[in-house]
Amino acid sequence: MHKKTLSYAFRRSLFNYYVAKRVKSTLDSSSPLSLSLPSFVGEMRGKHFLNTDDFSQDEVARILDLSFQLKRSFDDRVPTPYLPGRTLFMLFYNRSLRTRNSFEAGIYQLGGHAHFLSPSDVYTPALPEDSVPYQTEAISDVSRVLSRYGDAIAIRVYGDASRWIIGRGHKVIQEFARYASIPVLNMEDDLYHPFQALADMMAIKNVFPNPQGKRLVVSYAYSGGLKPLAVPQSSVLIGTQFGMDVVLAHPPGFELEEAVMEAAKKKADRYGGRIRVTNDMKTAFEGADIVYPKAWSCKKFFPPYSPSVDKAGASAYQDGFKDWICTPELMELTNKARYMHCGPADRGMEVVDEVIDGPQSLYFEEAENRLHVQKAVMCMVMG
Amino acid sequence: MHKKTLSYAFRRSLFNYYVAKRVKSTLDSSSPLSLSLPSFVGEMRGKHFLNTDDFSQDEVARILDLSFQLKRSFDDRVPTPYLPGRTLFMLFYNRSLRTRNSFEAGIYQLGGHAHFLSPSDVYTPALPEDSVPYQTEAISDVSRVLSRYGDAIAIRVYGDASRWIIGRGHKVIQEFARYASIPVLNMEDDLYHPFQALADMMAIKNVFPNPQGKRLVVSYAYSGGLKPLAVPQSSVLIGTQFGMDVVLAHPPGFELEEAVMEAAKKKADRYGGRIRVTNDMKTAFEGADIVYPKAWSCKKFFPPYSPSVDKAGASAYQDGFKDWICTPELMELTNKARYMHCGPADRGMEVVDEVIDGPQSLYFEEAENRLHVQKAVMCMVMG
Amino acid sequence: MHKKTLSYAFRRSLFNYYVAKRVKSTLDSSSPLSLSLPSFVGEMRGKHFLNTDDFSQDEVARILDLSFQLKRSFDDRVPTPYLPGRTLFMLFYNRSLRTRNSFEAGIYQLGGHAHFLSPSDVYTPALPEDSVPYQTEAISDVSRVLSRYGDAIAIRVYGDASRWIIGRGHKVIQEFARYASIPVLNMEDDLYHPFQALADMMAIKNVFPNPQGKRLVVSYAYSGGLKPLAVPQSSVLIGTQFGMDVVLAHPPGFELEEAVMEAAKKKADRYGGRIRVTNDMKTAFEGADIVYPKAWSCKKFFPPYSPSVDKAGASAYQDGFKDWICTPELMELTNKARYMHCGPADRGMEVVDEVIDGPQSLYFEEAENRLHVQKAVMCMVMG
Repeated sequence: MHKKTLSYAFRRSLFNYYVAKRVKSTLDSSSPLSLSLPSFVGEMRGKHFLNTDDFSQDEVARILDLSFQLKRSFDDRVPTPYLPGRTLFMLFYNRSLRTRNSFEAGIYQLGGHAHFLSPSDVYTPALPEDSVPYQTEAISDVSRVLSRYGDAIAIRVYGDASRWIIGRGHKVIQEFARYASIPVLNMEDDLYHPFQALADMMAIKNVFPNPQGKRLVVSYAYSGGLKPLAVPQSSVLIGTQFGMDVVLAHPPGFELEEAVMEAAKKKADRYGGRIRVTNDMKTAFEGADIVYPKAWSCKKFFPPYSPSVDKAGASAYQDGFKDWICTPELMELTNKARYMHCGPADRGMEVVDEVIDGPQSLYFEEAENRLHVQKAVMCMVMG
Repeated sequence: MHKKTLSYAFRRSLFNYYVAKRVKSTLDSSSPLSLSLPSFVGEMRGKHFLNTDDFSQDEVARILDLSFQLKRSFDDRVPTPYLPGRTLFMLFYNRSLRTRNSFEAGIYQLGGHAHFLSPSDVYTPALPEDSVPYQTEAISDVSRVLSRYGDAIAIRVYGDASRWIIGRGHKVIQEFARYASIPVLNMEDDLYHPFQALADMMAIKNVFPNPQGKRLVVSYAYSGGLKPLAVPQSSVLIGTQFGMDVVLAHPPGFELEEAVMEAAKKKADRYGGRIRVTNDMKTAFEGADIVYPKAWSCKKFFPPYSPSVDKAGASAYQDGFKDWICTPELMELTNKARYMHCGPADRGMEVVDEVIDGPQSLYFEEAENRLHVQKAVMCMVMG
Repeated sequence: MHKKTLSYAFRRSLFNYYVAKRVKSTLDSSSPLSLSLPSFVGEMRGKHFLNTDDFSQDEVARILDLSFQLKRSFDDRVPTPYLPGRTLFMLFYNRSLRTRNSFEAGIYQLGGHAHFLSPSDVYTPALPEDSVPYQTEAISDVSRVLSRYGDAIAIRVYGDASRWIIGRGHKVIQEFARYASIPVLNMEDDLYHPFQALADMMAIKNVFPNPQGKRLVVSYAYSGGLKPLAVPQSSVLIGTQFGMDVVLAHPPGFELEEAVMEAAKKKADRYGGRIRVTNDMKTAFEGADIVYPKAWSCKKFFPPYSPSVDKAGASAYQDGFKDWICTPELMELTNKARYMHCGPADRGMEVVDEVIDGPQSLYFEEAENRLHVQKAVMCMVMG
């Protein structure tokens, strides 16, 4: 039957069917009330995200699957309005480029909104032992108040902001979590940088879909600055969590926290990986599949390992290790390893341009992945 | 007639009816052009909100009704996109946790957007008498420029930012209002904190739906910090506006502004309430239904009551009244009174933890209510 | 035929037609996937906007046409959601009222979102020659990272932020553009202020739809502050680009950059305009159709024209020209000229209130136009 000869009634019923289908899809996709959300939204509703070690390999793998999915949507410019009306409070006690912009752009791409809160704009939230009358406000109060207005609190706090007392930054975040009735997200404290670890594992999985048994070298590299332990600690934790053959390389004195090493050993045992320590950068690089050379500070100059904060001592001590720098010669020793760094890299100290800007570098990919992993976790805990 | 046996024509007409209904509701709720807004949106279009005293009891009661309505929507996660495309400029000359976050989250929950403007990021808007070449810009210019870009200007200014000249902060806000062609909102100046007063009355009405005749004790409480008169002044104004039996308690020297006391007396007369003053905290608490113990500063150390600003004198004087603190013993004297404070409370000075964290405390509810009352006023004046 | 007597079938088909039309328009206008965008969105996709001189008269005229169109939509409150999901990064090395608020409100009115980035909140992006370990981050890195998260980078940098080395601010912006894979927008550097020039030409065209041959006087006017060359340079460029009769008036020593004067002459030749220089403000004003009296600084006190930065020398020198002020007497000499200034104007130095607040002033219109021209360019390059 030719189209033209279709009866009016038949055409009308076809048309009605078409209208109904489009209406239904419109209602499903654009009406705020009947929005049909993917099942992962709210899958970990209300959970804090303070440390990757609080989650199982399966849970982290699930987050990474969603991160890849959200990356595809982002690349294809497919809207992902999964958190309409949701507010994220971002408290930055420290400077940030990647973290701030990836969180703020990320929540917006999910249909939500972020508040950028500098501690000098609010009454600085403080632990009881750090309170200063009329300058600070108890974290217990701040956390409970913000819980009434929005949907998650993200915090960055280390170094000067946590008075260089190792563990104090993490304690600040735990205090927020204790009083918040909404999820608390760790944007890097003095012990952990869990979203960086997720972004890094996403980059690793993009190269090695099954990272088990691959050799990940987390190495000290020199910088004149004083950096926290967060990145190397979260790196060894995520590596062992995925059964990798983790080598930690550093000069004497740059040991990680005991508790972290024990947790890494536990993960290694559970997931079929390894964790070893060496004091030689060159040996460590031999046969590596991934290298992650990055500065951190020597603990013994800071409380509780020292009676007082001795920044000058820490700087002088680390200045003895300027030869811990990632060069093409070192890269030659590896198994064509990929280079990783959380950023900002101190070019000329931690690494030379040829490596970080070279074809083996995952530097910008790691930075980009921050966006995707954070969107995945926000969807899961804030939905 | 069984469903299966319905004639095709009848089913089709039912279906058409259903489609039409859904289409209409979609168009009404999601199309930006045909959005049908609740009638309160724009009900006070273009009005400034500088002081609750500028409004009648009926008008304030109407705002509170809408606040409760918006709170229900918030609690039920019902979207309230009543101000799509609207921009709120927030100028904070002073620190803020509650105000900043409740305004920014609030306008976003209404579909709008807030700019957080620190005076150091813009050319600081200043009165002619406070202008500093190349650092400040005339408020008259700033106000007219912002009026071209967005939909309301909210301002917080007191203390150092208004040079501790009592009334200067309020004058800044009045100057903005004089030149703005969009509503100006007072986020706390040195005389009034009208949104706090609304939030407080909302908390009171939640306990006493008809607050008339209930005894509200607005009392001085010690703090080492120098605080403005805004909260106690707005408290006695809103209390008398709702016919409450207001008792103002403070040590000698902590008198409120004459004009405010006269306005409160007028309101009391008009709405069947009372306003009394006592210099004894204990007497004041006896039989109270609500207590609001809060620090403010002694006026006589500041212009125009003093030739110059004497912060040291004001601090020394108030240090004589450290016994003005809200304790469980004092609470025992009341009629099982609810405890109120605008936040941040100076714990251990104004109040002990046992009271502020106890079952009679409305502390976090007041903070939360800021969100709802501000959304109500923004809907009414910016719509 | 009376409405009531229409047959049921006919009414139903009318109704169906109506439903279909509304459904189609709903789908077109509100579904994020099937949004039909105006053709200008993305018309210059990916282009940087660093200097109006990089564009032809036709291209600039096209931008201005869209600006007028977007202004009408704004005035009529017609939504313009042309950049949904798009993120604009705004890096302000200097203070800003107009630029910051017009960009932030503008991208929001287009359905997008802006990040306000103070250089002290991020690791300050710096040229290699300006890098400070642990304080700055290479622009090449910052630009590549932000390119992974969002859709355009807007930058303001001049004066202290570019160390008063003339051209250094523009070099910062060029460095961003070199490494960015998303458009870079110049929010004013030490050489150009292209969006101000667009806003100014929009104001001129509103008075003179065809500005060709009209006399535009860009004149020095005294201020105690040290201001960049950006506004006068972009003014002579945009004036000559539209074939105006441009008169540049300034005291000896206030010459613009050679390259800019040559570019202006080229434009004048190409588009039938003129560019002349005089050292007499009064002569310049005679017969003017538009006057633009505005302070800038004498180049010879700054590198590369001086071995070091000599702010005191520059201030002392310009203090000799306090009589370069725009008064009603000067305005009397003109052809009923319109008064222009980019803001903030130093009242009492560059201009007296009577002129800037008088009926010939375009001051607030120029400020408002910033919103519209920036929205036009963002639509074209970010779409």
